[in-house]
Amino acid sequence: MASGAEARRQRDAAVVASLQVVLLAAFAVLARYDSSADPRGGAPHDALGPRYPIFQDVHVMIFVGFGFLMTFLRKYGYSSVSFNMLVGTLTVQWAIIVRGLFELEEDSKIHVSLTSLLSADLATAAVLISMGAVLGKTTPLQLILMSFIEIVIATANEYLGVQIFKAVDAGASMFVHVFGAYFGLAVSLVLGHGARIRKGEGNALEGASYTSDLFAMLGTMFLWMFWPSFNGALVEADAQHRAVINTYLSLASCCAVAFVLSALLSHDNKFDMVHIQNATLAGGVAVGTGADMLLQPWGALAVGAAAGALSVFGYARLQPFLLSRLRLHDTCGVHNLHGMPGLLAGAVGALAAGLASPEAYGGAAALAKAFPARAASAAALAGNATAAAALDGAGRAAGAQAGYQLLALAVTLAVACVGGLVTGFILKLPFLNGVSRDYWFSDEYHWEVPSENHSHKLENGNEQEDTKTETLYDSQLHI
Amino acid sequence: MASGAEARRQRDAAVVASLQVVLLAAFAVLARYDSSADPRGGAPHDALGPRYPIFQDVHVMIFVGFGFLMTFLRKYGYSSVSFNMLVGTLTVQWAIIVRGLFELEEDSKIHVSLTSLLSADLATAAVLISMGAVLGKTTPLQLILMSFIEIVIATANEYLGVQIFKAVDAGASMFVHVFGAYFGLAVSLVLGHGARIRKGEGNALEGASYTSDLFAMLGTMFLWMFWPSFNGALVEADAQHRAVINTYLSLASCCAVAFVLSALLSHDNKFDMVHIQNATLAGGVAVGTGADMLLQPWGALAVGAAAGALSVFGYARLQPFLLSRLRLHDTCGVHNLHGMPGLLAGAVGALAAGLASPEAYGGAAALAKAFPARAASAAALAGNATAAAALDGAGRAAGAQAGYQLLALAVTLAVACVGGLVTGFILKLPFLNGVSRDYWFSDEYHWEVPSENHSHKLENGNEQEDTKTETLYDSQLHI
Amino acid sequence: MASGAEARRQRDAAVVASLQVVLLAAFAVLARYDSSADPRGGAPHDALGPRYPIFQDVHVMIFVGFGFLMTFLRKYGYSSVSFNMLVGTLTVQWAIIVRGLFELEEDSKIHVSLTSLLSADLATAAVLISMGAVLGKTTPLQLILMSFIEIVIATANEYLGVQIFKAVDAGASMFVHVFGAYFGLAVSLVLGHGARIRKGEGNALEGASYTSDLFAMLGTMFLWMFWPSFNGALVEADAQHRAVINTYLSLASCCAVAFVLSALLSHDNKFDMVHIQNATLAGGVAVGTGADMLLQPWGALAVGAAAGALSVFGYARLQPFLLSRLRLHDTCGVHNLHGMPGLLAGAVGALAAGLASPEAYGGAAALAKAFPARAASAAALAGNATAAAALDGAGRAAGAQAGYQLLALAVTLAVACVGGLVTGFILKLPFLNGVSRDYWFSDEYHWEVPSENHSHKLENGNEQEDTKTETLYDSQLHI
Repeated sequence: MASGAEARRQRDAAVVASLQVVLLAAFAVLARYDSSADPRGGAPHDALGPRYPIFQDVHVMIFVGFGFLMTFLRKYGYSSVSFNMLVGTLTVQWAIIVRGLFELEEDSKIHVSLTSLLSADLATAAVLISMGAVLGKTTPLQLILMSFIEIVIATANEYLGVQIFKAVDAGASMFVHVFGAYFGLAVSLVLGHGARIRKGEGNALEGASYTSDLFAMLGTMFLWMFWPSFNGALVEADAQHRAVINTYLSLASCCAVAFVLSALLSHDNKFDMVHIQNATLAGGVAVGTGADMLLQPWGALAVGAAAGALSVFGYARLQPFLLSRLRLHDTCGVHNLHGMPGLLAGAVGALAAGLASPEAYGGAAALAKAFPARAASAAALAGNATAAAALDGAGRAAGAQAGYQLLALAVTLAVACVGGLVTGFILKLPFLNGVSRDYWFSDEYHWEVPSENHSHKLENGNEQEDTKTETLYDSQLHI
Repeated sequence: MASGAEARRQRDAAVVASLQVVLLAAFAVLARYDSSADPRGGAPHDALGPRYPIFQDVHVMIFVGFGFLMTFLRKYGYSSVSFNMLVGTLTVQWAIIVRGLFELEEDSKIHVSLTSLLSADLATAAVLISMGAVLGKTTPLQLILMSFIEIVIATANEYLGVQIFKAVDAGASMFVHVFGAYFGLAVSLVLGHGARIRKGEGNALEGASYTSDLFAMLGTMFLWMFWPSFNGALVEADAQHRAVINTYLSLASCCAVAFVLSALLSHDNKFDMVHIQNATLAGGVAVGTGADMLLQPWGALAVGAAAGALSVFGYARLQPFLLSRLRLHDTCGVHNLHGMPGLLAGAVGALAAGLASPEAYGGAAALAKAFPARAASAAALAGNATAAAALDGAGRAAGAQAGYQLLALAVTLAVACVGGLVTGFILKLPFLNGVSRDYWFSDEYHWEVPSENHSHKLENGNEQEDTKTETLYDSQLHI
Repeated sequence: MASGAEARRQRDAAVVASLQVVLLAAFAVLARYDSSADPRGGAPHDALGPRYPIFQDVHVMIFVGFGFLMTFLRKYGYSSVSFNMLVGTLTVQWAIIVRGLFELEEDSKIHVSLTSLLSADLATAAVLISMGAVLGKTTPLQLILMSFIEIVIATANEYLGVQIFKAVDAGASMFVHVFGAYFGLAVSLVLGHGARIRKGEGNALEGASYTSDLFAMLGTMFLWMFWPSFNGALVEADAQHRAVINTYLSLASCCAVAFVLSALLSHDNKFDMVHIQNATLAGGVAVGTGADMLLQPWGALAVGAAAGALSVFGYARLQPFLLSRLRLHDTCGVHNLHGMPGLLAGAVGALAAGLASPEAYGGAAALAKAFPARAASAAALAGNATAAAALDGAGRAAGAQAGYQLLALAVTLAVACVGGLVTGFILKLPFLNGVSRDYWFSDEYHWEVPSENHSHKLENGNEQEDTKTETLYDSQLHI
């Protein structure tokens, strides 16, 4: 094995170790238990509350859902699930710090609670989506640096959207899905992956195997099942109940439509596992922004159906086009699962916000709870001056709220693209040593991989094959 | 590829799309948010309540549990988990509509709530059980049509059992497991699958591979672990607590006995993965009807032990007999996991109902809560005329309740068999184009399957094998 | 097949059946529903309470987490996940009885509740850890007998630690992890497994395959994700909230450090799947004893980082040393994942206990709740004589509590080693017929394993390979 590769791996490990030391120091200086986790805080018997199972559902989505969904590559399973875990564990720590700094408490400390962990998990989703665009073509260190930059930009963008524009986005389809997808696509574009993939040559490892497809379906299923928890994680009461119902229904119709479109757009009109693994989930993204709004059950079904069709169309038609024309390579097709359905989500959210009336929400107070910026005007509509005075806010009309929703969407798209482009140039710096083209989509760049033939040795008494693999592996090494 | 197969797949996709449109229209006309999911409904802070995690457990059972349990077939993994998902997502929508129509609210609308989603998931279990009997031998469209018919009949049967006979069935062992199993077996019989399976010829794909067995064990484990949630999903308070304890214990003893019987009844006295994957779960079925009754811990263990033995006996002895004598083919052995243990559950439930006294239940009111039809007589037993007057009901004696339990069981069995026979004849209609015998248990009928040899290409530089597979595939096509 | 092996398997099955009968009889005589599961008990609407989802998380850890983590062996997947299930289901029943006898209620009955099931699951973890040390080299009956002995000793040791020494151990790192690891290691030592493993010869089956590594990662992920539930399962309010935060953070830094150390200590500076599958979890163990103490977020990160480093060091350096010098074989490396991190946990717990002051805990009452033995002294410190009188306890100073924590740790270590040695000699009794060295790490000893070549038959039309396997299998049989 070339000592150069070893030295680089040692160096990368040392950088990761340093980052962990920095995180530890940041926590030591900045972070304390929230009062609800402090014995002096007088927490009730069930301090964890009903949000804990929802947090665990989201946790499963982040670490098993995303992790195994990416194992669809036949020889990149170790890396997919493990780098997802590595990037995820560093990102959640960093997200607690960065998000905490944006909402620092009076004592200048970050107060860590279950909500911090849940928010950190949600923020991490954006990074893992970006990772999907560049999966198999980057080193863990590149992914980790991307994450550290992305979390800062994503948090700032979310702050802008939520605190300044007063946009709402219950399931984070704009601030997580759109942001993560276009950020990752911009990184991929700058890294020039698409340009280096020569059609028909040496892409043998980019596809799936029968077994890897089934592992990926496990990721799909856990994402699909627990998405109602994702979209309802940060809202409450009837809004949370609606988020669960809308997401469940949107995912149901999305799945059916994804099967239909897959059969209509695929070779020989058969189903395509790539579509089933991914496009069946687009309904969860597309209903995210409006998950807690008054879509009504049929509206949720309609959104899901549109998302399923849009996503399969993306995989079957748009993605090859983007690769050949824009040289844009997108390993997991995050544009089709998170990008376009996220844009749809933003539009649906704006539409539902534009239709929201105090009557439908049962009064000005409830409407103001759903759309904080509408507080005053809603109260005015109801002719209740006292309530209007008690609530601060822009006092927006429904149309204005819709406009701000679209503004937040457009700004998110722009910030993600620019942020991703800049990040891409940073990740391209020569000293970071990207993965050699010969090792794209191959675990062998970072792992000792057991020879498949080992398992047949006992039966065949044939060790020749083994040697062959080893030889190939060594001779191919010119990284 | 023959264009006939493509045309048929296109046609089937179009039918599925139409069904989704019909569902969307039905929701638009009939379904609205329940008041607990409506901002005008005054839902409390934790509107989702403690039932949400239980719903998610059931959700995992339906989509990962059933889905992966059926991946045991070595070359039908794509289809098993994906068709389970497709059928499941259409069925839950349809079940919300059909069940909603049976309990229409005053405003002639179906009120959609978390309970609707949970009930829809439970109803879907019946369809997925039926699917197990015909797995690998039917098209997705056949399965979907079966589902749409089955949900109507099953809901009507459950209405009859619960509302007319006033039978109780906490874990739905009668209304879901018995119904789903015998319905599916009747369909299989009519489709003539058993008669077409010629022993020792061309059944190479009916078995498992090492890897497919492990994927199936994932399904087994999630079913096994979350079954207490299934059996306790729709009851409350101490009854729910008992359902969890009884189911946990029944599954524990069932598992141990299944291993014992598997070793005693299998070749060379080794364990058989088919038994471990399935019979270990029979305790969850067998304790279902009486899950919330006063079985006591030892009673739950006894029920589980009996179920484990019965189920392994079914797999090892009865199933081959039914195939050779009745020409009844049952891919997943649903008769052994759901059918017979479900009958046992009905008997256990009747027995426990027959032994239920006001004393054991701590009074007439509690007994009436457990067995609604016993309201009056229980109150009378307690000599409390006021309570008797306040509660309506048949005022049944314990023995009568036991009788009605058995009546509901018998009627369920009969309705399932007749309904399944009729449905089988419908699915046999020529224009539905069943799966050619050559493609039974093969994903290749509906999927582009990656050649296993692909993954060795890099090592071997050998692409001949690939071509061979493709050739075989084309030449075999005479569907 | 030699009839001797069959006869032995029949005999073992009969013994397991007898044990199940004994368990059933024990439950019949001793166990009743707890009042919270009895209709006469007046249980509230949500009798299951917020602990039920936490119980289910732990349940998943025990049956999917441990079960699939052990499937890393390439040809022992059936046995790993199935024997985990078999041993687990018998152990939980036995643990309910044994633990119930240690805390018998006034009516001389064991009161079965959700807490019983949860405690039984936690106790079972110790047995499954021990099983990890001897995995692949023992029969199911040996494992089951080990379990029945181990549960008695472990429960007695825990009683000593908790009731007599008044040590606290929220995540059971001492009473479950340290105990289970050293008990299993002692059994392995006595069984002489290490001495019989000749380096470089016939160990072909001890490693992983690409697929088996991915199945194992599923176990890893579910353990990693749900560990906060494990460590917080038996505490409440702010203590439970802290347990979740501390465990989440400890596992995050542990994971990052495990990757770093794996790259630094492995061949060619690549990552090693064994480290990623196991050492990433050590943070959950190491933070267990002090999980509910005031570690602060940075303290939890520090503990996790130390545990990750310690665990990888164990796998990469110490384990080979122990095998070559002490002839100690440890299939899953439980010493590195549970043993040493558990000792670290005990030390961290003692340190945090030694630093615990009434001020930090917000008063004497809160401190006494966290450390029952400090009740009186804490009250005295606060100058509250009435409270001191109302609370019984040793009235320990902080330093004394730290000392008792270390005493409990040392005693646990000693009891586990001695108990394991004795148990090892019992399991070595000739009539138990251990697994022949030729069948170590092979499912074929206990299962009909489908030939891998079956799946290629259709493509190759080649059945010769099949026969070869069968022949080899028969000729190798001299057990």
